[in-house]
Amino acid sequence: MDYLKIDCDNVRRVLKHFLFEEVKKIGFEKVVFGLSGGIDSTLVAYLCADAFSPKNVTALIMPYKTSNPEHINDARLVVETIKINFKIMDISPPVDMFFEQDSEADVTRRGNRMARERMCFLYDHSLKNKSLVIGTSNKTELLLGYGTVFGDLASAINPIGDLYKSQVRQLSQSFDIPQKIIDKPPSADLWHGQTDEDEIGYSYDDIDRLLYYLVDLRYTDDMLAELNFNTDMVLDIKNMIQRSQFKRRPPIIAKLSNRTINQDFRYCRDWGV
Amino acid sequence: MDYLKIDCDNVRRVLKHFLFEEVKKIGFEKVVFGLSGGIDSTLVAYLCADAFSPKNVTALIMPYKTSNPEHINDARLVVETIKINFKIMDISPPVDMFFEQDSEADVTRRGNRMARERMCFLYDHSLKNKSLVIGTSNKTELLLGYGTVFGDLASAINPIGDLYKSQVRQLSQSFDIPQKIIDKPPSADLWHGQTDEDEIGYSYDDIDRLLYYLVDLRYTDDMLAELNFNTDMVLDIKNMIQRSQFKRRPPIIAKLSNRTINQDFRYCRDWGV
Repeated sequence: MDYLKIDCDNVRRVLKHFLFEEVKKIGFEKVVFGLSGGIDSTLVAYLCADAFSPKNVTALIMPYKTSNPEHINDARLVVETIKINFKIMDISPPVDMFFEQDSEADVTRRGNRMARERMCFLYDHSLKNKSLVIGTSNKTELLLGYGTVFGDLASAINPIGDLYKSQVRQLSQSFDIPQKIIDKPPSADLWHGQTDEDEIGYSYDDIDRLLYYLVDLRYTDDMLAELNFNTDMVLDIKNMIQRSQFKRRPPIIAKLSNRTINQDFRYCRDWGV
Repeated sequence: MDYLKIDCDNVRRVLKHFLFEEVKKIGFEKVVFGLSGGIDSTLVAYLCADAFSPKNVTALIMPYKTSNPEHINDARLVVETIKINFKIMDISPPVDMFFEQDSEADVTRRGNRMARERMCFLYDHSLKNKSLVIGTSNKTELLLGYGTVFGDLASAINPIGDLYKSQVRQLSQSFDIPQKIIDKPPSADLWHGQTDEDEIGYSYDDIDRLLYYLVDLRYTDDMLAELNFNTDMVLDIKNMIQRSQFKRRPPIIAKLSNRTINQDFRYCRDWGV
């Protein structure tokens, strides 16, 4: 997969600079993020430990009662290895209270609520400790909309949002991230044995290859067919990207004036700082 | 204040069309929003009742234990007058549980948590009942950042986000909205006697006049001084706008590829639909 190959040294240098400069520009010294024990948030932990003094980095480990204890142990291994601050908070009581009157709630509603409870803890920690919330969603997830809006997709800045899953793996190999974390099947861990790839229906290698040609190189359907991409898969993935655009964009505001927020009034987030 | 005068008939026509068409385009038939009993969410209730069959409109009334009962009564009056669905849910237990271990939490942290609990209820209702979440923040609040990111600022579409507070009042007058709701001092209702204007430090009339020249007409500091705007107030309001830009924009993603989400990959939310 040469097309998705990244220059890890260079990317690490760019991301170290990005994290340090953006956080400073926004007026913060400290950062916080949710650490699941999966590869994405683990990579973010290592990137933050690289960019900041460990005392300014905090990981919140926020398991639900059904979370796989192996992931929590992996998360603990990470924080102990790179010596950053951490806090373990059980999100089961608030999530369970939410569905007390509604025991029929399906796994999607429950998963969304878990993701949003974690967002609440992160943003409360952010305000209490003047720490910026760092995002942990990769480009593959963001494009497919495989995440909860105003939940795990919520952050101030995201160092890995322009790296496909397979690139996250490459970059992780360049750190001394425990191999077991790199190798375990990606999972939202909402139920026992859940894996991203089962749920999405394709392997990350296949998805990333398609996304690269579709998004980065703007290949048309005909050009994709020439590369032997399966037509159904192309349609399926394109639908996922389009249907989830709302998760990547701010709310739509009805235009009534000369200058409407996010239409004509559209600065960078750090204009004027 | 001629400069802020709107043609209410025309605006109502535009917003009715906006609500109906956007909701349909996204593939929904039903809508849901939080109703506080204040003027903004009441106006949204009337706009929705205008655009949709009342059976497809639901208001969630979500008081906290310290909420002023007058507002809840006003909210009930609204839903009974326009005959839309409603549900009252007390957010006190989850919010109090959140701060159980942290009784020192200040009013800002508590207010943010309340706003985010309401967002969780709205988005859970959205998924459960296939109803689109309609935003209730006006342009003045959005520009000043007077709201909670991933809380009350979270929505799918917002019909009043391009109307200043004084324009919300005008449009409300054109409906038969109870005069007491139009006249009561705007308040986030986090503590007894709180008002927006006390907290922000200026009256909405003054703020709206300044925002109109500053944002809509792009007046420079010199031009504003010629109109006798107070220099300190101009600086203060400009700071509020700049500091809160992060509440209006999606997370910043470190650019690493040819095509980065929200930088080169930036469609309307409804592209391809």
